[in-house]
Amino acid sequence: MPEPIVFGFPQSTYVRTVRLACVEKGIAYTLEPLRFSSDALAELHPFGRIPAFRHGDVSLYETTAICRYINTAFEGPSLVPPGAADQARMEQWISVINAYVDPPVIRDIVVERLTRPLQGQPVDEAKCSAATPRAAHALGVIDTALTDQAFLSGDGISLADIFLLPIIYYFRQLPEGIEMLPSLPHLETWYERMQNRASFAATTPPPPGGR
Amino acid sequence: MPEPIVFGFPQSTYVRTVRLACVEKGIAYTLEPLRFSSDALAELHPFGRIPAFRHGDVSLYETTAICRYINTAFEGPSLVPPGAADQARMEQWISVINAYVDPPVIRDIVVERLTRPLQGQPVDEAKCSAATPRAAHALGVIDTALTDQAFLSGDGISLADIFLLPIIYYFRQLPEGIEMLPSLPHLETWYERMQNRASFAATTPPPPGGR
Repeated sequence: MPEPIVFGFPQSTYVRTVRLACVEKGIAYTLEPLRFSSDALAELHPFGRIPAFRHGDVSLYETTAICRYINTAFEGPSLVPPGAADQARMEQWISVINAYVDPPVIRDIVVERLTRPLQGQPVDEAKCSAATPRAAHALGVIDTALTDQAFLSGDGISLADIFLLPIIYYFRQLPEGIEMLPSLPHLETWYERMQNRASFAATTPPPPGGR
Repeated sequence: MPEPIVFGFPQSTYVRTVRLACVEKGIAYTLEPLRFSSDALAELHPFGRIPAFRHGDVSLYETTAICRYINTAFEGPSLVPPGAADQARMEQWISVINAYVDPPVIRDIVVERLTRPLQGQPVDEAKCSAATPRAAHALGVIDTALTDQAFLSGDGISLADIFLLPIIYYFRQLPEGIEMLPSLPHLETWYERMQNRASFAATTPPPPGGR
């Protein structure tokens, strides 16, 4: 079988999640550059999002699907904990991150402060202000969950942790995150733990707009 | 262990998905009525959505998490296909349904046409019109996927099918669905197949606003 191919650009949080899955599993992969609104993307993903993924004759899109495939199809440490309850909690946190963390933190605050300026557009401060309490609530729920455990689900790293990491990476660089995150000590300790893993450095993205 | 409890109201598509999972697994459960914005809900789900779920000392929220738990924790036919690729495709379809089908079909068209009138509010026709091409695109992708297979992933029913069924159930009752669905023949055949299962009748919701 050829190496799996991850299609997308490295600044995308979801592309980084898939790359983190590859590195944590110990598998080699190719990152194939692909930007929004390209013909190549339309062929790989009928809804025009990234990442997309190919491994031999298996083509997939949507990050949850790609990560599940990587975990099951390859040898290496499992990124899904054993036991029905811990597996379900992992799913719960992935769903929380996708539904309640990503929208205010990435789609609102990070896109406004990091992407809009590159497009020559002004930052919508009202959007950032409206998103901040939603971000605080969602990250507060996660902080509480991390009170007495090192990772989001089970005893070791799981897919839930690698969905969250790329989001916090950007949020820490922005005024809202710099103000909010010190009040979430368990999340901070978790981030330091994640930051010390080899997969962090191996997937650190170039600056927005860079290569 | 006591029977699992599903918290929510039966008209919710996501509550029906969880009930379908219980019935397809052949397990007894209690449906505990719970409406939005209640104190009881705030305790069960920190983001105030339904369903929530309890089984002994396992408390969960978010439908993907609850369904995974039901499939793994109980005996009965598996609702997750074997094999890494089919499992990943199931995840892909669940993600497609949550991200690209539910927003235009349920949150826009169904809420406008079925929920707003109960609240004494006018239907936002512009919202319905804007949602219709997005619904058509997403359901078209699913129709194509069903061209030469009976279910969304693998050889039998999976969690992906039970995420989709409650959405199509409502869409068929509304002008947009009545016009669109006959042009999606594979989806129509799939719906007839799903409609003939015992789980369909066992979970058919009362009318919106009814008990």
